[in-house]
Amino acid sequence: MELLKQKIIDHGIVKAGGVLRVDSFLNHQIDISLYQEIGKEFYRLFESDNVTKILTVEASGIGIACMTAQYFGVPVVFAKKSKTSNVAENNYVGHIYSFTHQCHNDIIVNREYVTPQDRVLLIDDFLAKGSAFEGLIDIVKQAGAYLVGAGSVIEKGFQGGGDKLRSCGIRVESLAIVDSMEEGQPIVFRN
Amino acid sequence: MELLKQKIIDHGIVKAGGVLRVDSFLNHQIDISLYQEIGKEFYRLFESDNVTKILTVEASGIGIACMTAQYFGVPVVFAKKSKTSNVAENNYVGHIYSFTHQCHNDIIVNREYVTPQDRVLLIDDFLAKGSAFEGLIDIVKQAGAYLVGAGSVIEKGFQGGGDKLRSCGIRVESLAIVDSMEEGQPIVFRN
Repeated sequence: MELLKQKIIDHGIVKAGGVLRVDSFLNHQIDISLYQEIGKEFYRLFESDNVTKILTVEASGIGIACMTAQYFGVPVVFAKKSKTSNVAENNYVGHIYSFTHQCHNDIIVNREYVTPQDRVLLIDDFLAKGSAFEGLIDIVKQAGAYLVGAGSVIEKGFQGGGDKLRSCGIRVESLAIVDSMEEGQPIVFRN
Repeated sequence: MELLKQKIIDHGIVKAGGVLRVDSFLNHQIDISLYQEIGKEFYRLFESDNVTKILTVEASGIGIACMTAQYFGVPVVFAKKSKTSNVAENNYVGHIYSFTHQCHNDIIVNREYVTPQDRVLLIDDFLAKGSAFEGLIDIVKQAGAYLVGAGSVIEKGFQGGGDKLRSCGIRVESLAIVDSMEEGQPIVFRN
């Protein structure tokens, strides 16, 4: 998606340790017209897949999922990061590891909101090592729902999570894939 | 907003301790057409106020803020709940207390994203005792920006936060104000 790549080139900041800061337009301050274009692009990619639900995880996936969902006309469900081990019985529980924050999180989704009749599209802002999507995929499996695929806005291709998921047969669509980046060097996108 | 009140009547669940569960349509599973109508209603209420930025706090405010922002054509900024006391110097820091989770949180906003030139509209899903809005108002003040007002989807009128803010001269618009609710009883809305 050229508009997105240009935004990353113009406003993204590469930091040491494989960090790409895009918080001026994607995940702290939000360029709402960019979000609309992102939503339309995910719709273009998955419009023939009879998606019935969009599943994401709090926090920065929520806005993108909502903007996307309005083009599909389907509900969003966002998994919550569980603050307690005392999770109600009525939830599916997934597990994710944040390499950024170096912490484990259980994520929970109420069983009523993902069902065996659902065709689920996963949406998130970043795809790095794939842990967030793996946690969500686990929840889709527990629910007996059909996984249509996963859409990420920015994939850090060099961290391997997207290709690992693809090698498992999962359809992963990323709107920009960064194959390499170093401080002070141009960002290299996958074609 | 009649559509919202009807949703609350049909699908809201009143629990002990002043808890109103609306997670089937508002803050876990999201009815995206309702979110669109909520966004249009906030736009109708504040369209003449030259809003330049919408400020909310993660997590459940983000989707509503994004859907609203697209009608204004302005960016969203969402305050992040700080996980560390080691907050970067470049942030405004506000303080909120969650009565639901009984915990204190610092919330942070990068100084670049709210400026003295901004006319800020606050948006959140719930207004109970007002702590989240107070934390956001503090950040608006630190930034020297102009506070246009605050929009909440559901106000628990009986918890007093909205009226406290109004008594301080702040314009608060809630799309549904619950004045009383008890398990097994009809919900009473303010007219």
